[in-house]
Amino acid sequence: MIKEIITPALYDTDALGHINNCTLARWFEQARNPFFKMFMPIGNGKITKWNLIMARTEYNFNAEIFLGQDVEVRSFIEKIGNSSLTTYQQLWQRNTLCADGKAIMVHYDFKNKCSVKIPDGIREELSQHLK
Amino acid sequence: MIKEIITPALYDTDALGHINNCTLARWFEQARNPFFKMFMPIGNGKITKWNLIMARTEYNFNAEIFLGQDVEVRSFIEKIGNSSLTTYQQLWQRNTLCADGKAIMVHYDFKNKCSVKIPDGIREELSQHLK
Amino acid sequence: MIKEIITPALYDTDALGHINNCTLARWFEQARNPFFKMFMPIGNGKITKWNLIMARTEYNFNAEIFLGQDVEVRSFIEKIGNSSLTTYQQLWQRNTLCADGKAIMVHYDFKNKCSVKIPDGIREELSQHLK
Amino acid sequence: MIKEIITPALYDTDALGHINNCTLARWFEQARNPFFKMFMPIGNGKITKWNLIMARTEYNFNAEIFLGQDVEVRSFIEKIGNSSLTTYQQLWQRNTLCADGKAIMVHYDFKNKCSVKIPDGIREELSQHLK
Repeated sequence: MIKEIITPALYDTDALGHINNCTLARWFEQARNPFFKMFMPIGNGKITKWNLIMARTEYNFNAEIFLGQDVEVRSFIEKIGNSSLTTYQQLWQRNTLCADGKAIMVHYDFKNKCSVKIPDGIREELSQHLK
Repeated sequence: MIKEIITPALYDTDALGHINNCTLARWFEQARNPFFKMFMPIGNGKITKWNLIMARTEYNFNAEIFLGQDVEVRSFIEKIGNSSLTTYQQLWQRNTLCADGKAIMVHYDFKNKCSVKIPDGIREELSQHLK
Repeated sequence: MIKEIITPALYDTDALGHINNCTLARWFEQARNPFFKMFMPIGNGKITKWNLIMARTEYNFNAEIFLGQDVEVRSFIEKIGNSSLTTYQQLWQRNTLCADGKAIMVHYDFKNKCSVKIPDGIREELSQHLK
Repeated sequence: MIKEIITPALYDTDALGHINNCTLARWFEQARNPFFKMFMPIGNGKITKWNLIMARTEYNFNAEIFLGQDVEVRSFIEKIGNSSLTTYQQLWQRNTLCADGKAIMVHYDFKNKCSVKIPDGIREELSQHLK
C-alpha cells in the first residue's frame, strides 16, 4: 500500500462548498504515480515514453471532502493480469473513508497499438502492494 | 437523449497526445448540465442552490480521443429511483464510441443532510430521456 | 474578433460559489482554438504537430462569474510580431465585462528549440482579427 | 518565502509532452495556500468562510516543465496594500526558473460586496514573507 498526502486547493472545490467529483479523478491518478514509475523509463529527469493506457475507472463518493484539511489516498494493487493492472484506492479525511475506487490500466505499445505482457520484474514490484 | 458537442482544447490532452481520462470526468459532468437544470432553481441568472450529490461514476475508455475534431456526448437516463438518478453517457468521435459510462446521483438536502424523493414533475422530464 | 459561447459546469466553480480563476485560464485557452487552427496542420482529423509555445498570460478578474448562464469570450489579435503573437480576450456574462486578458505565444520549432517567423499566410488570417 | 514541492501528474501535461500553462494557474494557487490560511477561519477542520477575491494574475513561462521530476514553487509577498495583497512566485525544476508570476488578491467581504482592510495581525504574518 502506498500513501499519498494531498492538501486540497480552492480550485479543487465546487459551489457546493466541497471537493468536486472531477477533482477525485485527478487525485486518484496523482496517487497512482508510484505505480506508473515502475513502468516508465525516466531519461534525463523526464518521462519520455508512457506505456500504460486507461481502460476503466469506477469511483464511489461516500462522504463530503472539505477544504482546510489534508486528505490521504491509500493505493493498493487489486489484480495483476497478463497485460492489465487493477488498482484499488481509498481516500480518507477526518477519519472517514470519503471515497474509494478502482482503475484498470493496460500495459500498452502505443506504436504498434497492442497490449503487452507486464514484465516479471514490474510484476514483482507491483505484487508488494497487493490488497 | 441529449446531445452535447464539445471542442477539445489543448489543456484537455496529456503527454500521450490524446485526451486525458480526467478530462472525460469533466466532459461527462458538463454534458449532464441539461439534467441538472431540471433540478435547480435558477434565480437572477445564477444557480443559487444545488440539490444533487454524486454517489458513483464508472467510465470505460474504449478508444483514444484526439485534438482537432469535435466530440459528441450523448446522455441518457438509465434509471430513476426514489431519490436517486442514474445517467448513461456515450462519447463519440470519428464515428467511434470512444468512451461510455454511468453516474449515480442522489437528490439531496444539503442542509438536513438527507436524500429527498425526486418530485413527480422532474421525474416526468427525466423519463423523456430514458435509454 | 471571434466569439465563443461557453456554458459553465459545476466543476468550473469553487467554494465561493462562483467560477474559479483557474477555470478562466482554461476558457481563454479554449477560445483561442480558432487562432491555433490557423497554425496547426490537421491530418486525419487529428492535430499531430503543435507549433506555438506560451510565453505569458495576464488576466484581470473584474466581476464574479456564475453558474446558470452562458458566458461569451471575445478574442482579438492585439499584436503580430516577427515570431510572436499577442491575443486580447474579454469574458462577458450578464452584460458585464467580467474578465479580460492577454496571452503572448511564440511560433516555435519544438524539434530545433527555436522561434520561427510567422508565415505571411497565417499573418494575413490573424490580421483580420486585429483589435 | 514559502516552498511547496509538487509532483507533476499525467493530467498536468498536454500533447506537447510538457506541463500545460493552465496547470501552472492551479499550482500557483495551491502554493498560495499558506497565505490563504492566514486569512481564513478554519472551524471543525473545514474552511467555512473565504475572504479573498482574485483581481489579477500574470504568469511568465520561461522554460518547459516536464513529467518525471518534482517542481518547487517559491512564494513571496511582494506588496501589502490597504486591502490588497500581491504575491510573487517562482517555479523551479531542473535548477531552472521555469515560470514566475504575480497574483493580486483583495481582502473582501462577500456579503457586503466590499473590500476590507487587512488586519494588523495578518499584515505582520504576511510581512515575514516579503521579497
